[in-house]
Amino acid sequence: MMKEEKVPYSLNSKKVADATREWLHKRGVMISEIAELVMLLQQKYYPNLTMEECIHNVEQVLAKREVQNAVLTGIQLDILAEQGALISPLQEMIENDEGLYGVDEILAFSIVNVYGSIGFTNYGYVDKLKPGVLERLNDKSSLPIHTFLDDIVGAIAASASSRIAHRKQAERERELGEDTLGDNIAP
Amino acid sequence: MMKEEKVPYSLNSKKVADATREWLHKRGVMISEIAELVMLLQQKYYPNLTMEECIHNVEQVLAKREVQNAVLTGIQLDILAEQGALISPLQEMIENDEGLYGVDEILAFSIVNVYGSIGFTNYGYVDKLKPGVLERLNDKSSLPIHTFLDDIVGAIAASASSRIAHRKQAERERELGEDTLGDNIAP
Amino acid sequence: MMKEEKVPYSLNSKKVADATREWLHKRGVMISEIAELVMLLQQKYYPNLTMEECIHNVEQVLAKREVQNAVLTGIQLDILAEQGALISPLQEMIENDEGLYGVDEILAFSIVNVYGSIGFTNYGYVDKLKPGVLERLNDKSSLPIHTFLDDIVGAIAASASSRIAHRKQAERERELGEDTLGDNIAP
Amino acid sequence: MMKEEKVPYSLNSKKVADATREWLHKRGVMISEIAELVMLLQQKYYPNLTMEECIHNVEQVLAKREVQNAVLTGIQLDILAEQGALISPLQEMIENDEGLYGVDEILAFSIVNVYGSIGFTNYGYVDKLKPGVLERLNDKSSLPIHTFLDDIVGAIAASASSRIAHRKQAERERELGEDTLGDNIAP
Repeated sequence: MMKEEKVPYSLNSKKVADATREWLHKRGVMISEIAELVMLLQQKYYPNLTMEECIHNVEQVLAKREVQNAVLTGIQLDILAEQGALISPLQEMIENDEGLYGVDEILAFSIVNVYGSIGFTNYGYVDKLKPGVLERLNDKSSLPIHTFLDDIVGAIAASASSRIAHRKQAERERELGEDTLGDNIAP
Repeated sequence: MMKEEKVPYSLNSKKVADATREWLHKRGVMISEIAELVMLLQQKYYPNLTMEECIHNVEQVLAKREVQNAVLTGIQLDILAEQGALISPLQEMIENDEGLYGVDEILAFSIVNVYGSIGFTNYGYVDKLKPGVLERLNDKSSLPIHTFLDDIVGAIAASASSRIAHRKQAERERELGEDTLGDNIAP
Repeated sequence: MMKEEKVPYSLNSKKVADATREWLHKRGVMISEIAELVMLLQQKYYPNLTMEECIHNVEQVLAKREVQNAVLTGIQLDILAEQGALISPLQEMIENDEGLYGVDEILAFSIVNVYGSIGFTNYGYVDKLKPGVLERLNDKSSLPIHTFLDDIVGAIAASASSRIAHRKQAERERELGEDTLGDNIAP
Repeated sequence: MMKEEKVPYSLNSKKVADATREWLHKRGVMISEIAELVMLLQQKYYPNLTMEECIHNVEQVLAKREVQNAVLTGIQLDILAEQGALISPLQEMIENDEGLYGVDEILAFSIVNVYGSIGFTNYGYVDKLKPGVLERLNDKSSLPIHTFLDDIVGAIAASASSRIAHRKQAERERELGEDTLGDNIAP
């Protein structure tokens, strides 16, 4: 009889990426809604910006492992709070989106950081004004609980905005015919 | 003949604190103007908040070494950019508050971080809307250069707001007669 | 018949503080063990440092809400991973302390940040070398799972070290008879 | 007579990238020395890692704008401190690499952050042990002043290590013949 052996753990990156998109969808967030936040933040600076570009940049942000880790961890804590499955007083703090909790902002910031400090401002701005999809996610009158998800969605939009700023600079330099680094400068 | 000896360096904290206040003043920023930003951010949540409280909380933020380090370093870089004394292309980036530079936001964030993640949102909000003193600091049509200072002032206001949120929670718990930690919970 | 009303949520800070200490204890971490890490990090710089001082500084770090939030959230995720209660592939990543899952480091850093950037180095150092209690927490051969807790304990020790550095500077200035800010400079 | 017009500022990314490499060289840091730090940090995990790979990954880290901004700003402050050109007491703090001045660590961290939280540990470790080139940069007995540069070089090495960890995972998945995301997962 063969002895059962524990198969050593080996991460499958595609599973992490797929789960991220699947869970955003299950929690009611569409990529196009995040792209609309990006458009809101960036159309002032780039009047020709298209929704296709916004969607593409959101997709690229979602392809980063750091972003996927934060999305999955945040949604997990939201779900457990909905189920009342957390230890007290963590349960009450997340359930009520308590003002002094702050771990939701920390996870959101780990997303923004990957695209550098220029995203800090955009994150704070949408997190305060709660436009579009963020208004719905931030509705505290009923379930589901989105204490983490609203901050995370704002952070993805801010990161996609930073990514666009880097890419547009590269485009501008190419058009000026400058001896440029092209896409290499963009994260 | 006495041999000259190098006196070992010994930091004098009061000098650092005094220089911070002096340089904010020299660069045209009054404590009361920062306190007005705090009032703007917090009066919605605490209708009885007074200007005295806002000023007091700004003063306490300015008493932290991390904050003083960021203020002095940022103002120094602004001054050097005004003098044209920086190496190229750092000179051009700071002089023009270049969008992809971002070190100004990094210094600002080192201030906000000391009061925890709940200040992130307030920072981004005032940095985007540029109310009050920030509008003046952000005016790029003439000297002086305030590439760092506008972000730093916004960060001090956001930090003072976080500090107030902690203190008000402690007050509320005392009024409820709860077995409370009182001021110990606030940073 | 009285209509049942939902009591509005009101945080009790003491409950959060108490739960933090209780859960550290339940997960097998003693304050004195964290203090030993502090001693290891700081005795080189302050030969007269006592265990009582180290313990006191760890206690003060644990009195901060930001620290309590991170401790409770991290321990919660460790416990859920032990129970196999997380969604896949988050379950597998936390269970196996997967190298590219960095949310544990992010929570740890939210602790270190409260005491400023001078704690970054100490955190990284103990997190790499895993001395004392960290070696036990990091043992992956058996349950319990401490993917978050080992990083969090290292962060508390690094923060207490930063706090000591600030306090010792204030002491030194007092001894020099300088016109000093005393304890006000320390966070 | 032509009216003189101010040419609107337009960043040239290549100039920023070139200045970064040039100034690292002028300050005595070779890419190969940074690569040696990477090798030291990573050979334990990847025994077949080559110096060519380490150099390549350092080069890729240096291609990021966030990294270039931090390098140029840090080196600039080191140079000004050498010249005695800073305001007091900033001059004394940077000149003496004062323990409670943490802006050098803050700039270093803005580099590490771009590659996510998994680099925090490696940064702290090399910053504490000061192996290789860091020992030379950290020598405080004589000019030049490298208060910022030693932390920045450690951060570049830590970031290159994070980048390698992401790439190696992608390679491993390809070898396993998994349905993988390939290089897309790596920042």
